[in-house]
Amino acid sequence: MATDSSTPDASRPQIVWHDHVVSRGEREKLLGQRGCVVWFTGLSGCGKSTIANALDQQLFQAGVKSYLLDGDNIRHGLCAPATVLAEEYGQELAQRFGLGFAPEDREENIRRIGSVAQLFAAAGLITLTAFVSPYRRDRLRVREWLQAQGRITDFVEVFVDTPLAICEQRDPKGLYQKARAGLIPHFTGISDPYEAPEAPEIRLAAGDGRTPRELAAEVFHYLRENKFLLGEKPPSEASPSPGIDNGE
Amino acid sequence: MATDSSTPDASRPQIVWHDHVVSRGEREKLLGQRGCVVWFTGLSGCGKSTIANALDQQLFQAGVKSYLLDGDNIRHGLCAPATVLAEEYGQELAQRFGLGFAPEDREENIRRIGSVAQLFAAAGLITLTAFVSPYRRDRLRVREWLQAQGRITDFVEVFVDTPLAICEQRDPKGLYQKARAGLIPHFTGISDPYEAPEAPEIRLAAGDGRTPRELAAEVFHYLRENKFLLGEKPPSEASPSPGIDNGE
Repeated sequence: MATDSSTPDASRPQIVWHDHVVSRGEREKLLGQRGCVVWFTGLSGCGKSTIANALDQQLFQAGVKSYLLDGDNIRHGLCAPATVLAEEYGQELAQRFGLGFAPEDREENIRRIGSVAQLFAAAGLITLTAFVSPYRRDRLRVREWLQAQGRITDFVEVFVDTPLAICEQRDPKGLYQKARAGLIPHFTGISDPYEAPEAPEIRLAAGDGRTPRELAAEVFHYLRENKFLLGEKPPSEASPSPGIDNGE
Repeated sequence: MATDSSTPDASRPQIVWHDHVVSRGEREKLLGQRGCVVWFTGLSGCGKSTIANALDQQLFQAGVKSYLLDGDNIRHGLCAPATVLAEEYGQELAQRFGLGFAPEDREENIRRIGSVAQLFAAAGLITLTAFVSPYRRDRLRVREWLQAQGRITDFVEVFVDTPLAICEQRDPKGLYQKARAGLIPHFTGISDPYEAPEAPEIRLAAGDGRTPRELAAEVFHYLRENKFLLGEKPPSEASPSPGIDNGE
């Protein structure tokens, strides 16, 4: 393509025009933070989505630019099932690219989410993801992809370690009950394994009575201590306390 | 999941704790801009990637938070071909989900890119994409997806209208030569159609001697006039002129 890389601007002899690609470091400087992926993993009902939302809010209130990828915004678009795709794209495309619950579908689901999360981190955002992601290998692949494309610190794995009994007792969507009744095959924690992270960056001992906000604050603290949040507002400028919505 | 939505904070009786999801409007207010997708479309060699990069740089220099999705960051990850996926994921997953050049593969390619671009716009970023995207129907689907998920103005289609003869003369990757020799089947503009947008938000009459920076500035102007850039620096604070890299 035509470029004018070597054409000096005669009126400004000290300035050389050239094609420049905005670097990740420049984007991060503009945003006042370092991008990363905060990957919440844990059983269905462990609280990961609630905690991730609370963290997203705390970051927002501190002036940090973040985004949350979860079932709500992934499941109907990027990782839609065949039934959803068929309406618009027809059966052939839907059957091939739509995601179900077979092993390769789950792998591809996490692969797509990891690929997108990497792009958000490269854009400089604190990127939160909340998916069960039960398999070590799938999470490791995302970690390695992020590290290969960016920095060694780009993947912050957060294990929301809520005992199965508590998750099953909460059963917010009635899924455990269905799984116990044999109505949902391959249900993580019941008929399919959850492979707990061996060395996550953060293990949240959830189910110990702390609120989602308190657990989120632990992750916020980690991000601040590890210099991901370079330009966040000091406490005096931010809202009185993370997680408080004062109705404004 | 356990929430404490209804638990008032006794020490601050006027403040009610509740689970709050950060809205798109709040993210945009924090960023000082309105998210959107600026979708560059045009023949291979039309200059869309160069112009998109120049725009990305101009936005950056004006303090606007943007990101560019193009072949460089999509092709090895989210929309990788089977050959790339096979190394890590094996043949079965690679053959099913890897993208080639069959009609349904091209559809899925644009679908995935559109899905991701929508997420970036929802995060509040000015999101640039640079792909040939030759088919009207595929682009229309992205437009409708964005509008259904967000606002009617979220899709800004930019037709980089460079005459085929000029694209072929440039032939930056030698693809036209190969296509003419019959070595690349279904090559857009040669053996496959390019369906020009009928009513794009912006038509760039490229190939008229203007530089990529000048063409990018036309898009920048559109974004400013249409109130996507609410908090960009006034010219006096920004770099002396968009597109100039003064070496700092």
